[in-house]
Amino acid sequence: MGGKTKITKPTLLLDKNKCLANIKAMAEKASKHGLVFRPHFKTHQSLEIGRWFRSQGVEQITVSSLSMAGYFANDGWIDITVAFPVNVLEMEAINQLAEKITLNLLVESIDAIELLNPQLTSSVNIFIKADTGYGRTGIDSTQTFTFQKIIEAVEKSKMMDFSGFLAHAGHSYKCRNVREIEEVHNRSIARMMQLKENFIYAYPNIIASIGDTPTCSVVDNFEGIDEIRPGNFVFFDIMQQQIGSCSFNDIAVVVACPVVAVHPERSEIVVYGGGVHFSKDKIEDEGKVTFGKVAENKNNARGKVIENAFVKSLSQEHGIISAPESVVKETNIGDLVMILPVHSCMTADLMSHYVTLEGERIEKRVNSLE
Amino acid sequence: MGGKTKITKPTLLLDKNKCLANIKAMAEKASKHGLVFRPHFKTHQSLEIGRWFRSQGVEQITVSSLSMAGYFANDGWIDITVAFPVNVLEMEAINQLAEKITLNLLVESIDAIELLNPQLTSSVNIFIKADTGYGRTGIDSTQTFTFQKIIEAVEKSKMMDFSGFLAHAGHSYKCRNVREIEEVHNRSIARMMQLKENFIYAYPNIIASIGDTPTCSVVDNFEGIDEIRPGNFVFFDIMQQQIGSCSFNDIAVVVACPVVAVHPERSEIVVYGGGVHFSKDKIEDEGKVTFGKVAENKNNARGKVIENAFVKSLSQEHGIISAPESVVKETNIGDLVMILPVHSCMTADLMSHYVTLEGERIEKRVNSLE
Repeated sequence: MGGKTKITKPTLLLDKNKCLANIKAMAEKASKHGLVFRPHFKTHQSLEIGRWFRSQGVEQITVSSLSMAGYFANDGWIDITVAFPVNVLEMEAINQLAEKITLNLLVESIDAIELLNPQLTSSVNIFIKADTGYGRTGIDSTQTFTFQKIIEAVEKSKMMDFSGFLAHAGHSYKCRNVREIEEVHNRSIARMMQLKENFIYAYPNIIASIGDTPTCSVVDNFEGIDEIRPGNFVFFDIMQQQIGSCSFNDIAVVVACPVVAVHPERSEIVVYGGGVHFSKDKIEDEGKVTFGKVAENKNNARGKVIENAFVKSLSQEHGIISAPESVVKETNIGDLVMILPVHSCMTADLMSHYVTLEGERIEKRVNSLE
Repeated sequence: MGGKTKITKPTLLLDKNKCLANIKAMAEKASKHGLVFRPHFKTHQSLEIGRWFRSQGVEQITVSSLSMAGYFANDGWIDITVAFPVNVLEMEAINQLAEKITLNLLVESIDAIELLNPQLTSSVNIFIKADTGYGRTGIDSTQTFTFQKIIEAVEKSKMMDFSGFLAHAGHSYKCRNVREIEEVHNRSIARMMQLKENFIYAYPNIIASIGDTPTCSVVDNFEGIDEIRPGNFVFFDIMQQQIGSCSFNDIAVVVACPVVAVHPERSEIVVYGGGVHFSKDKIEDEGKVTFGKVAENKNNARGKVIENAFVKSLSQEHGIISAPESVVKETNIGDLVMILPVHSCMTADLMSHYVTLEGERIEKRVNSLE
């Protein structure tokens, strides 16, 4: 810390160099494979960090809500995909955005097209959500006839252009090593390729877009894919480390939490830092439920991960850390403990800003205010 | 809805009448038992709702952070307990508050007293956190000697006054009926009574304060207790219903979520409403992991709870609802689904405001901005 910002409360620290390296590595990977790099900005939700992407040549982005699209459109982003089934109740926001930027919307039914069409006052691009095995949202990629019907409905509309297919292989989050990620990915892109082949002659410019950090981080086969939309890789987190997408060293964020109590008798440390700072995503790590992992505090930046030191539970404002006796013994009230979050997207969403290791404050969007 | 606010995004609806009834019932219960009613405001975090308490005669409140204390102090609350182990890194906030209000702080070690004492510029009251069986924070209530040492350290300080003991029987959250809650409560207050008895002759004015919604809602024995600090009861939620603290009918909040996709083939509805709106607390209900329960939409207020309709998973912005075929069949894109949250404190924390059934917007504190 350069001392510009004194840390007194749970604070999201950002290692700018790690973050820039993560951005550069993914941009280079996309370029090497001839892919459009359309990063998902829902992870960082920051204009400043968005500009770091821009300086790497990124011009097209992904977001997860119309509010987030509006936030980035105001900073000069003019080609934005809202990778979320279109919310037809927000027609006003859709029309306002569509008037000034290239707005790419996502649909997964004819109903959505029919609700959108009569209300659109500016043209939008339409992606159809394909389910390639995740089973959360989208149309089963083998249902060619359903896709055909939706495409026809899009083509009939004067305000919509059919852009292609969008998938999210979210089941890659269940993987625990590179081989498993590759298997999920290969099955997923094989289904995307088949889907695209069915329509490429009629629509030669269609785009096949995929988007998860685990696959984009580790695979090297993007056959038939035109665009990638990973988001989490900008920071990574311990869930990604566990999946196999990154190493601990790649994780660019850490939450500095004040110690408020120390309990040597049960080898625990209580910190100010709870569910309202971390959210409540958790992983199982060596049989233990873990809400965050503890790293060394090196002059208020984070050092190495400490073995067997982890957040065992979170209340609204409290975090309870279980740690080896030797660590607890050296910890005092008023110290700052460095906690690597389980899920950096959710943690960042809860915070209003980042503080870099140089002490610079970086603002971000506050989700609840829009 | 009176139509003053059009709902287009996930929106936290508040049934003001239910909320007022919950406040009134708890205030009357405290009064009946001769207890000081010091409600925890971390659940609602709203100045307006705070005033509803004031109109029921409440003059003393509880919060979970110094930032929250500052927020309410600015609205004329002059006696505030921060029921969280004191964060000594926030001395500036402590001194500013202590100068203008009666500030009650919580400690659980001599270390905290020794760090506080030389830095205090105005006087504060000190509660000592007693662990009566929960095991999260506090000093085991049977460790009389440790309490004695802390009390002596407090008494030696010119800036601190010893106020009493504070406990939170958080293990009542594991209960599933009134009998279990009563058992936890009776064990907990027996320990508080013993602790108080050890010190009452030396300090005749000490206060024994307890605080969880399950016990305060259902028990009728407060022997030896002087003050209660429940918070969640102001809204309740499905976790409290499951514990046995309330009925579905008492729950005063519901999140209205736009439907963005309907999947009859898997009997699912996809809504705009995810972890960034609900947080990710969950319960097990009839063997199924549940992130929220679906109620009928009666003119954009909530009706009865729908059997077997629940949120089965949450992503950052998506909620996936599993519902009976008949319900899915009648649901359309653009409808609003009413979801009762698992944990209303966490859900409210994520939102910037409430909308009453009459369409009135009620502002609240946004945690991340302070």
